[in-house]
Amino acid sequence: MDFAPSARAADLIERVGRFIEDRIVPVEADYHRQVSTARDRGDDPWTPLPLLSRLRAQAREQGLWNLFLPAAHAGDYAQRFGTHGGAGLSNTDYAPIAELTGRSFLAPHVFNCNAPDSGNMEVLLHYGDRAQRDRWLDPLLDGSIRSAFAMTEPDVASSDATNMAATAVLDGDQVVLNGRKWWTTGIGHPDCQVIVFMGLTDADAPKRHRHTMVLVPVDSPGVTVERMLPAMGRYDEPFGHGEVSFHDVRVPAANILLGPGRAFEIAQGRLGPGRVHHCMRLIGLAETALEAACRRGLDRSAFGKPLAALGGNRERIARARIAIDSARLLVLNAAWKLDTVGAFGALSEISQIKAHVPTVAQEVIDFAMQIHGGAGLSDDFALSAAWTTARAIRLADGPDEVHLDLVGRLELAKHTDRS
Amino acid sequence: MDFAPSARAADLIERVGRFIEDRIVPVEADYHRQVSTARDRGDDPWTPLPLLSRLRAQAREQGLWNLFLPAAHAGDYAQRFGTHGGAGLSNTDYAPIAELTGRSFLAPHVFNCNAPDSGNMEVLLHYGDRAQRDRWLDPLLDGSIRSAFAMTEPDVASSDATNMAATAVLDGDQVVLNGRKWWTTGIGHPDCQVIVFMGLTDADAPKRHRHTMVLVPVDSPGVTVERMLPAMGRYDEPFGHGEVSFHDVRVPAANILLGPGRAFEIAQGRLGPGRVHHCMRLIGLAETALEAACRRGLDRSAFGKPLAALGGNRERIARARIAIDSARLLVLNAAWKLDTVGAFGALSEISQIKAHVPTVAQEVIDFAMQIHGGAGLSDDFALSAAWTTARAIRLADGPDEVHLDLVGRLELAKHTDRS
Amino acid sequence: MDFAPSARAADLIERVGRFIEDRIVPVEADYHRQVSTARDRGDDPWTPLPLLSRLRAQAREQGLWNLFLPAAHAGDYAQRFGTHGGAGLSNTDYAPIAELTGRSFLAPHVFNCNAPDSGNMEVLLHYGDRAQRDRWLDPLLDGSIRSAFAMTEPDVASSDATNMAATAVLDGDQVVLNGRKWWTTGIGHPDCQVIVFMGLTDADAPKRHRHTMVLVPVDSPGVTVERMLPAMGRYDEPFGHGEVSFHDVRVPAANILLGPGRAFEIAQGRLGPGRVHHCMRLIGLAETALEAACRRGLDRSAFGKPLAALGGNRERIARARIAIDSARLLVLNAAWKLDTVGAFGALSEISQIKAHVPTVAQEVIDFAMQIHGGAGLSDDFALSAAWTTARAIRLADGPDEVHLDLVGRLELAKHTDRS
Amino acid sequence: MDFAPSARAADLIERVGRFIEDRIVPVEADYHRQVSTARDRGDDPWTPLPLLSRLRAQAREQGLWNLFLPAAHAGDYAQRFGTHGGAGLSNTDYAPIAELTGRSFLAPHVFNCNAPDSGNMEVLLHYGDRAQRDRWLDPLLDGSIRSAFAMTEPDVASSDATNMAATAVLDGDQVVLNGRKWWTTGIGHPDCQVIVFMGLTDADAPKRHRHTMVLVPVDSPGVTVERMLPAMGRYDEPFGHGEVSFHDVRVPAANILLGPGRAFEIAQGRLGPGRVHHCMRLIGLAETALEAACRRGLDRSAFGKPLAALGGNRERIARARIAIDSARLLVLNAAWKLDTVGAFGALSEISQIKAHVPTVAQEVIDFAMQIHGGAGLSDDFALSAAWTTARAIRLADGPDEVHLDLVGRLELAKHTDRS
Repeated sequence: MDFAPSARAADLIERVGRFIEDRIVPVEADYHRQVSTARDRGDDPWTPLPLLSRLRAQAREQGLWNLFLPAAHAGDYAQRFGTHGGAGLSNTDYAPIAELTGRSFLAPHVFNCNAPDSGNMEVLLHYGDRAQRDRWLDPLLDGSIRSAFAMTEPDVASSDATNMAATAVLDGDQVVLNGRKWWTTGIGHPDCQVIVFMGLTDADAPKRHRHTMVLVPVDSPGVTVERMLPAMGRYDEPFGHGEVSFHDVRVPAANILLGPGRAFEIAQGRLGPGRVHHCMRLIGLAETALEAACRRGLDRSAFGKPLAALGGNRERIARARIAIDSARLLVLNAAWKLDTVGAFGALSEISQIKAHVPTVAQEVIDFAMQIHGGAGLSDDFALSAAWTTARAIRLADGPDEVHLDLVGRLELAKHTDRS
Repeated sequence: MDFAPSARAADLIERVGRFIEDRIVPVEADYHRQVSTARDRGDDPWTPLPLLSRLRAQAREQGLWNLFLPAAHAGDYAQRFGTHGGAGLSNTDYAPIAELTGRSFLAPHVFNCNAPDSGNMEVLLHYGDRAQRDRWLDPLLDGSIRSAFAMTEPDVASSDATNMAATAVLDGDQVVLNGRKWWTTGIGHPDCQVIVFMGLTDADAPKRHRHTMVLVPVDSPGVTVERMLPAMGRYDEPFGHGEVSFHDVRVPAANILLGPGRAFEIAQGRLGPGRVHHCMRLIGLAETALEAACRRGLDRSAFGKPLAALGGNRERIARARIAIDSARLLVLNAAWKLDTVGAFGALSEISQIKAHVPTVAQEVIDFAMQIHGGAGLSDDFALSAAWTTARAIRLADGPDEVHLDLVGRLELAKHTDRS
Repeated sequence: MDFAPSARAADLIERVGRFIEDRIVPVEADYHRQVSTARDRGDDPWTPLPLLSRLRAQAREQGLWNLFLPAAHAGDYAQRFGTHGGAGLSNTDYAPIAELTGRSFLAPHVFNCNAPDSGNMEVLLHYGDRAQRDRWLDPLLDGSIRSAFAMTEPDVASSDATNMAATAVLDGDQVVLNGRKWWTTGIGHPDCQVIVFMGLTDADAPKRHRHTMVLVPVDSPGVTVERMLPAMGRYDEPFGHGEVSFHDVRVPAANILLGPGRAFEIAQGRLGPGRVHHCMRLIGLAETALEAACRRGLDRSAFGKPLAALGGNRERIARARIAIDSARLLVLNAAWKLDTVGAFGALSEISQIKAHVPTVAQEVIDFAMQIHGGAGLSDDFALSAAWTTARAIRLADGPDEVHLDLVGRLELAKHTDRS
Repeated sequence: MDFAPSARAADLIERVGRFIEDRIVPVEADYHRQVSTARDRGDDPWTPLPLLSRLRAQAREQGLWNLFLPAAHAGDYAQRFGTHGGAGLSNTDYAPIAELTGRSFLAPHVFNCNAPDSGNMEVLLHYGDRAQRDRWLDPLLDGSIRSAFAMTEPDVASSDATNMAATAVLDGDQVVLNGRKWWTTGIGHPDCQVIVFMGLTDADAPKRHRHTMVLVPVDSPGVTVERMLPAMGRYDEPFGHGEVSFHDVRVPAANILLGPGRAFEIAQGRLGPGRVHHCMRLIGLAETALEAACRRGLDRSAFGKPLAALGGNRERIARARIAIDSARLLVLNAAWKLDTVGAFGALSEISQIKAHVPTVAQEVIDFAMQIHGGAGLSDDFALSAAWTTARAIRLADGPDEVHLDLVGRLELAKHTDRS
């Protein structure tokens, strides 16, 4: 159990932290203001502002790019891409970087480490063939295109992924897609060029061998973005979440990932590091909320005392500190297990953090909103958007309940022989 | 402790319920869709749609109008206004009606019972003089104008109302207002014509005698709506919450309510029934969320079972039922105490419900969102907006912490002689 | 929803309250001290002290006796027994009396209203035939004997009563009992003369028609009290909870209640009022804990302030007040439903209170222990015993989880037609 | 952040675990049964049974003795005592051993690592002079005597240690003690020979320089054990907690530790490792409770399913796993900080675990009791005693509230310069 970052990671952590502090934080509030008022000025809120491209260029120049890329594969890519290939960090090494990027809504994108692109890049890295990697992975690593992930469906309980009813049917050397997806994250970005689509191929196969993952160019005939979906009233520009219909969409069978019926195999592998990233970013988000709460608690006074000294506020600050610190250690431990025993060995740990950390973040942020009074609900502080992020992740990548159930089953399994 | 509605109230409850069920609920989703897409069509989302006026006219025609109006005064007004004067209901009688109106975002406005207008009407009724009532109360009761309430300020901790720093200084037969308010609810409505403004008049007077309430015509020179504020990303059209600056705004001293330095006296009286209304509406909102959760839990299946049968879901439904039922009884009891021993005698009960019920609603709605999956966060169900309503009321009219502190002090006071 | 007690009940409430305050509270601490040190003096802690008999005689003399007896039947018994027949109170009327008796560990017994005797008396009243009533009910009402209830078994999950495996087999005009029971409450009392025993008669009958209730004289051959059981280290003298074995115990078939296979019918009817009593007593217990917490919070100082003014203590006092008041209203409402629509109509309400109120009491008492410091855990205050009482009731008469499940099912049933 | 035990520690962990599993666990239930029925057999429950001495001798023989002894000083002692001097483990190394000993009520004593002796030994080691160490520390390390710690007082809020009112007044070359202490842990043991006493010496000195710690032989004239105190009805034999009066007790001034007025200095140093030990033992205790819950959940069935598959039970198991794992990591991190930056640098971390871990254990155990039904409250499983242990530690060594307050203050202090 050694969670200390390597010397190389320590240097990157320091530089990422400085970049965020010096270059992103100072411009972030203004950036969001511009996005939220874009429509009033007749602008399209879905077009990223030029500032973002400049920041991305700087990050890339400094080698702060694709750092999420897993150690095992980063070697090849580092060779191929130079600094674009990531730094060969372990999950334990990358975790503190993910925490830092969570302190800002822009940072993950600036460093080309944002969901769902990072997850899609991992999928391509692990499961894509040479042609697929050339066509999609290289420009994603390069940052010149974006991608979307289409699994959840509006008409079925998508917490059980075997429920997915959209179809991916083989027809000669093509695969034909039909159905309706929603919460297709990333589809709103103007640079989004490919959708990772999960569809039902063989309803008679064993449950976890029925579905197929297919790479679908966004401009394929039959693909329609029906609407963009707000989460708690927010659209999360420029990535966003779309409702997307697929009507007789035909793509070459060569676009199938790994092979027909192997979607679950891929999904499993995809989600371990992604959940560590989500959770560490939420730790970073919760830290910013607690810092804001402390500052507000010291700066404002009521009934003759700083807010922090009133009622149970100091206790709430203490409980937030305890909750964040123990949650961070839990995530670091999951990352370390992922590094040392692999995704299957870390099954419980990964589900534990996914079931636990978003609620911790949500509660810390809720407290921070409360101590800010009305300001906490407004957009003047990033707390309201932060809350929405934490809340949404309680559903994304499997709702809390599914993860708790898995943790419970694994715990009970330890005793089934003995009982 | 008799919480049963009078025969008269029972009839009104039945009719209000039917009106909401038959006329409002069927059109509500479409109404909200039109508002949220208004801008895309080049429309102003702040202009209420004609449908709303039609519903209001029908409600008024049926005598389902101003029912919140307190029993004691409704007599005069009933005479003067016919059916517009309210029905002379006690708080206990009105409570179930408030619950019903909470089942819909439009209903309170349809029945002319919405905040902040209802509270402002009560203030005018209790504390306005004849001229003030003629000019403002009559058209408010009639529904032809709307009003706003301006107390909270961006620059001070407004949970302590004695902190308010905007000024209301007497200058001959005028009063001069300066300062900045926010969360001025109702200011976005195109019919809003008057602001109830609270300002500091005499900084040397005893704490609770420093402030004055003034009726300020919206079009007074020096009044500027700087911006409308989103709460958790929502603007709450057509009422909304504004940041409003006052620069040397001069109104006649005759616009002062009750007298200089008497703002706290008014605020105290204003808030008892208003808190019962808020809380009962939240009970109604929580009921709709629980109903939606049950239906979703029965309609959708995962892992071979209806969601309601999975994990702890049935327990969560049970806990929601218990939380709602006990919260409703607590509010009914507060209403009954308000009726039988008055606002001062019901001080603890009123603060108890204000500190407790919004959290109950927030938690029930959060569960309902969770069982809806991604749909719960979207605007396809009203859950996300409902959550925001409950969350915002944890801050409006005094944050939870202030009410808890009062309840705690009153509890301890029972023992100070004995100890 | 009228929870106000009748004039007759109001008078009894006042007198019961005074009796407890004047006669029981002043001697209670000393009574418990004597019991807990009995063994050190060579005395038997299971023999009630003479003081208890004196208090019981006084209570009976004042007509404060058997007040739990349900209105419907009290008439006959009042005639037959004079004041011993109860006062003909409704559940709503009796509830505040039960709350008062909950303020003292001795009071329920003093007023002949203690579990399990009150429940057993109700069973005999509703389901006993003339001979059974003459032999057992009359002396129980008279207070000259005590009784025990034997349902739970050590070898099966007794939360599912259909699991009960002890047998009650008919053999001619006898019924033969075999098996092992535990948590047989009341068996420790020297005056205990009869056990209400539930056993399996016909394993092939439909699930809820397999079991039979039998009245078993304590001195029947084959009945052995194997040991008395401590709950959280306490034995609850003089009633206690025993582990009791039954080896070929033969009693006349005439001792069967209602008929073979009808145990569930009886259990159902028995539990409604009993749960109201348990819950109201817990409300009384929680009130005493909150009072003690307030007094301690005012009397003791640390860091220069009374404990009540430190950290979140005042908020905790407020939350306790809110929790108790809403819990009490929930119980009153359940009692009122029991009175107005009967046990079947109040099924959800009864399970709601049983699942909710003990936890409320447990948490309030836990807080009271905490603010008392080490004293809270000692026996110098009754808090530690109070906590144990509340905790035990979370399991007695069906664990929380069973009741929550029923409430959840009933809630979902409202929607099964509509969905 | 490297929490992995050293190779030497790993070996000891393995051996301690095996010793507990093989030698203590098999006899423990019987041991407790013998203690709890001692009085019925005419035996003294305060006399440790011979089995305990045998186990202690074996542990010592195997070098599993005094392992808590801090690395820094263990060197000297190892030399002096051979294996009795501890193994020179860091806090991080000892933590997993402490967790293992927490799995059994006997184990801490068996390995001579039990409170309050371990804490008292540390005090003597760090602050005792040569004579004091010779007289008291050597036999304590040897296990031939036991000790008690007397700080808490019945008449003041002892959560604020500056409140302590018992006096330790210098009179020539003697110090005279007067006052009353309670929760003097360890005083019940027949081998207890010395009390570490804290008393007020100079009421006019600065707050944290008023009190003195004195070593008091138990048989000093004027020392009276007034009574032993039950915590939640249990006496914790053979150590126990006593109420002890001191009447003009005179001991040589040479018995003063460190010097007059330096009690706080000592207390501070004493508590860091002790809190790590307490918390790790509670982690072990919680693990045994969760294991028992899983086994019971699998072994017993109700309503046709294993308990573990009913309602929210599997979720509760998952939450328990998450709570325990994150709590353990938090304690390991505190131990690691204690090792790397010392007690002052780990101030927040130590208070964090003390405020958090006991509640985690209490809640896990409460769930385990619930799933065991009535058995969970009985003494047949160790759950009821385990709950009491966890509950008591929420008060011992400073109540939760004091630790939360400190954590909150330290958190706010990070922002006082910036705000």
